[in-house]
Amino acid sequence: MSVYTTVSRESLEHWLQGYALGQLIDLQGIAAGITNTNYFVTTTHGRYVLTLFETLQLKELPYYLTLMSHLAKHGVACPAPVADHSDRFASLLAGKPACLVSCLSGADVDAPSAEQCRAVGETLAQMHKAGATFPLLMKNPRGPSWWSRTAQQLYPRLPEDQAALLREEIQYQDAHRFDHLPSGVIHADLFRDNVLLDGNHISGFIDFYYACNDILLYDVAIAVNDWARLDDGEMDDNRARIFLEGYQSERPLEMAERSCWPVMLRAAALRFWVSRLQDLYQPASGELTYTKDPMVFQRLLQAHRQRQDFWLG
Amino acid sequence: MSVYTTVSRESLEHWLQGYALGQLIDLQGIAAGITNTNYFVTTTHGRYVLTLFETLQLKELPYYLTLMSHLAKHGVACPAPVADHSDRFASLLAGKPACLVSCLSGADVDAPSAEQCRAVGETLAQMHKAGATFPLLMKNPRGPSWWSRTAQQLYPRLPEDQAALLREEIQYQDAHRFDHLPSGVIHADLFRDNVLLDGNHISGFIDFYYACNDILLYDVAIAVNDWARLDDGEMDDNRARIFLEGYQSERPLEMAERSCWPVMLRAAALRFWVSRLQDLYQPASGELTYTKDPMVFQRLLQAHRQRQDFWLG
Repeated sequence: MSVYTTVSRESLEHWLQGYALGQLIDLQGIAAGITNTNYFVTTTHGRYVLTLFETLQLKELPYYLTLMSHLAKHGVACPAPVADHSDRFASLLAGKPACLVSCLSGADVDAPSAEQCRAVGETLAQMHKAGATFPLLMKNPRGPSWWSRTAQQLYPRLPEDQAALLREEIQYQDAHRFDHLPSGVIHADLFRDNVLLDGNHISGFIDFYYACNDILLYDVAIAVNDWARLDDGEMDDNRARIFLEGYQSERPLEMAERSCWPVMLRAAALRFWVSRLQDLYQPASGELTYTKDPMVFQRLLQAHRQRQDFWLG
Repeated sequence: MSVYTTVSRESLEHWLQGYALGQLIDLQGIAAGITNTNYFVTTTHGRYVLTLFETLQLKELPYYLTLMSHLAKHGVACPAPVADHSDRFASLLAGKPACLVSCLSGADVDAPSAEQCRAVGETLAQMHKAGATFPLLMKNPRGPSWWSRTAQQLYPRLPEDQAALLREEIQYQDAHRFDHLPSGVIHADLFRDNVLLDGNHISGFIDFYYACNDILLYDVAIAVNDWARLDDGEMDDNRARIFLEGYQSERPLEMAERSCWPVMLRAAALRFWVSRLQDLYQPASGELTYTKDPMVFQRLLQAHRQRQDFWLG
């Protein structure tokens, strides 16, 4: 259940006077999402999603909300934040930073088809192209220096073989540089639960709160690692190949990207292996953490290390 | 028929590569609109309206398109222009300035109900409030100096009684100043054919190509003069009153606006009387003009001059 902060009709009605959205009709808590409180808000003008941010601060929001607005303006399917009469996308409600975004149709898909993977790949490439004119910058808080630092704290707590694998992979990644690859705005968390689909049609990418500026290929690797992964942790070659076909139909990979692709798939697996290990061994006190199994990404990393075919055709 | 410029599938497919909208599926000319060429464009991502501007130049478009984008971002129902990969809302297609906007549902209404008038009034007020943070400026090209200048050319061609009425009204308006009233972005042409409705729900205001910065109350007068006018040119008191109720539910008129309201209704009637006389007596050569009856606005002006009740309650 994701309603951590309760919003009263009265306080919402008052807050909505700062918007051009008409009168409040209905307010319904949404039982999904892990970190934030979400409501469906229906007004005389339409239906919106209200998010109250439980951990992000008001001053941290402009990058994410301006990015979503920029992408929506370019026709990339994602929720469009609504600005208030002071031209702000967010302000305090019930003591929390809060925003309204347009309500999308569709639902997330647990077992995507190859065609759905193609559509996600294509839209990811369009997002990368549309992000090229986005003026704000955000460093990736979960890049190589973060995983090295976090690994130092994890080594003493991990079984010997896991610690050895983690140490070896970090050394391997340290020996590779990606600075020469195309960079830009990345979603950085484009897992299956962050895409709303309507059949093969992308209703929208959602949950941009890990978005940042980094290597575009890294974003592709994060997404392929999830969209083409089977329940047993193995990769579905067909879905992976078709995801990449969809991506390359909009943005063909450069030669330098093709050569870095095998390393990048491992980097993307490493990043989520480390964060899940961190959630397991060092849960942030008071943070609403829903621990997911780190083993999935350990196995994926091991499989990538053995892999010969990387689906690039 | 409004397709003055033909767009081929091939040239549109090429042009669409500059957008994040997927592949072209269908292209259909729209048989509505007087000044511009419009097409429905369906891509793998959705449905859009393509406009090719037959008279406006590329450099004149940013005010209008950025305004529509600003209003859409604030939740005011109107078509949202789509930006291309160079972050432009318009560029040349088939030799004409062209843009894509989101496709709205709904249709224009010939005989609006009182509740529809209320909804239009309310949305107009919301548009005025949302326009307060719009940074661009455009002077009204059809203000008092335009109608005085145009009237000078019309006097010799008009019947005696019409020339006398026109001269008298312009003198009357010259004796009144509105500089102390709230100003901002106005639509300036919010007639029944420029609002798409879905029952009592406003799908969108359209055709912002007369929008400019001027007195807000003038915009209200232009709209009331059309939305509450009956076929015989008389005003429907109920529709006028309810339009104003809807407007004031979002932006109550100030005392100074209430006192200027009767003069403003006459100014708004004068403006369209003059432009229709101009279309009739001096049709711009080569311009695609669809002449409308000036007499409607002459009679409306005469009625306003006799009126005692101005529906403000």
